[in-house]
Amino acid sequence: MKKGQTGRLTIQHIKSGGATGIFGKSAQAHDSSVGAVSKKVFAELKKKYPKYKFNYRIGISKQEINQKLCSIDSRLGQTLFVKESRIKPDGGIIEVFDKKGKPRIILVSEAKYQGKDIENIQAGILVGKNKDLDLMVAGNAIERVYKNINEIRNYMLDELHFPYVIFLQGSNFATKIVQVFKPDGTFVEIRPDTGSMNRIDRVTAANYCMPINKNYCKNIFISNKKASMMLQAASIYARCEAWTEKEMKVIMLAVAKSSLDILNQLG
Amino acid sequence: MKKGQTGRLTIQHIKSGGATGIFGKSAQAHDSSVGAVSKKVFAELKKKYPKYKFNYRIGISKQEINQKLCSIDSRLGQTLFVKESRIKPDGGIIEVFDKKGKPRIILVSEAKYQGKDIENIQAGILVGKNKDLDLMVAGNAIERVYKNINEIRNYMLDELHFPYVIFLQGSNFATKIVQVFKPDGTFVEIRPDTGSMNRIDRVTAANYCMPINKNYCKNIFISNKKASMMLQAASIYARCEAWTEKEMKVIMLAVAKSSLDILNQLG
Repeated sequence: MKKGQTGRLTIQHIKSGGATGIFGKSAQAHDSSVGAVSKKVFAELKKKYPKYKFNYRIGISKQEINQKLCSIDSRLGQTLFVKESRIKPDGGIIEVFDKKGKPRIILVSEAKYQGKDIENIQAGILVGKNKDLDLMVAGNAIERVYKNINEIRNYMLDELHFPYVIFLQGSNFATKIVQVFKPDGTFVEIRPDTGSMNRIDRVTAANYCMPINKNYCKNIFISNKKASMMLQAASIYARCEAWTEKEMKVIMLAVAKSSLDILNQLG
Repeated sequence: MKKGQTGRLTIQHIKSGGATGIFGKSAQAHDSSVGAVSKKVFAELKKKYPKYKFNYRIGISKQEINQKLCSIDSRLGQTLFVKESRIKPDGGIIEVFDKKGKPRIILVSEAKYQGKDIENIQAGILVGKNKDLDLMVAGNAIERVYKNINEIRNYMLDELHFPYVIFLQGSNFATKIVQVFKPDGTFVEIRPDTGSMNRIDRVTAANYCMPINKNYCKNIFISNKKASMMLQAASIYARCEAWTEKEMKVIMLAVAKSSLDILNQLG
C-alpha cells in the first residue's frame, strides 16, 4: 500500500456506528488453536458415532506416505533423504477404522495467521521503514501451506474424498472491507482487493480457484483428453477476523461428517 | 545439527586429496540465473525448430489461469480477490503455438537456493546463537515452491505433459556427503541424511516421491477405485553445488523437447 493511498484511507473520521462491531466482536474471539478444537472434534465424533472407532494422530511420517504411494503405483514413493521426516498439520489428523480395520483419514486441519495490521492500527503502531505507514506490505509465508496439502493429496490418492480444512485469518485474508479504528478515533480500511495486502489468491490454487469458505471434502471428477481426473480440493476458510472455536468446530465436524458419508457409501 | 555432532565432523584433518575437488569445482560455476538460461533455451529452440513458433513469457495472470480452469470445468476458476494477481516462475514460461495457433506451455523453470553452509565454512564463519556452530539449522522457505507448481498444474490440467523444472542448490539440498574445508585446513561434512539440514524431503511431494534428478515431463496415469488419474510430477534437480549454466540448459532443453514430442504425438 502506497503512502498516498494510506493517507486517503485515514482522513475519514467516524464518531460511532456500524463499522465498530465488525472487528470489535471478532477481537473477543478466543485465540483458540486448531489443535485444541481438533481434539474436541475427535471427542465429539466418538460420542456421536459410538459404533465407529476413531484415531487421533499428530502427524504422518514420510516413510508411511511413501509406502502408501508405492502401494498405489510402484513407481511412486521411492525417495527419502532424512529417515525421520514427517508432516504435522497444525490440527493433527483424525482417522476412522473401516470394516476391514484399516484407518482412513476423515479430517486434517491447519490454521494460518498472517497480517497483524488490525492489532497494529488499534494499538496506534505505524509500520514500514520510516514508521509512517498504517498498513504493512504482506509477506509470502502463507505459500508454505501447499506442502502439507500436497503430502496429504498424495497419501489420499486412493480415496474419493479429501477432508483438508485450512483456516486463514489476519489482515492478509480479508474477504470484505474491514474498518479498523486508531486510538485517535480515525479509522483505516483493510481492503480485500489490495495487491500489497491480500494473500488469499496465493492459496486458491489449492481449491482450483473455486469459491472459498465451502466444504470440498467430496472429490470432483473432470475429463481430460485421455481419462477422467480426480481433483482434491482443500476447503479454505478465510477472513480477516479470528475464527472462533465454535465456528471452527462446526466446520470441522461437517467435513468429518462428509468423509464418513463418502466412506459409508463405498460400503 | 547438535554441537557434539559438529565437533565430531571437524576433528578430522585432511592435508590434501580427493575431497577438495568436490566443492572446489562447483564453486567455479557461474552464478547464472535460471532466467538467463531460459532465454538461451528459447533462442536455441527457435534455431533448432525453425518451423515452430515459440513464445517467451515472464508469467501468467491468475485471471488467465481462472479462465483456463473454468473452460475445463465451469465449477473451477471462480475466485480472485486482487485483479492484478499473477505468478512469475523464476525462469519464465516458454510456449509453442500448435497447429490451431493455440499457445501450449513446453517449459516452466524455477531455481531455489537454500543453505549457505559451504560459503560460511569456507570463510571460517561460525553460526548459531552463540556463533559456535559450523552448520546452520535449515529454514523452511523452500516449501513455498509448491505454490507455482500447483498453479501450473491447474493451468495444465487439460494437457498430458507437465514440463516443470526446479533446480535446487545449496547445503540444504545435498544428495551426497560433501566435505567442506575451513580456512584452518580442517573440514566439515554436509550430510544428506541430517534432519536439521536437508530439505529435499520438503519438496518431493511435488514428484510423488519418485527419484529426483529426472525428467518427468510426460504425465503418469494411475488407477483409482473410480477412474484413471493423471499425475503431474515436477522434475526436481537437487544438489549441494550450484548448477552450471550448461547443465541447466541441457536439462531444460530435454524437458522442452519432451513437451514437443508429446504435443506432436497428439497431432
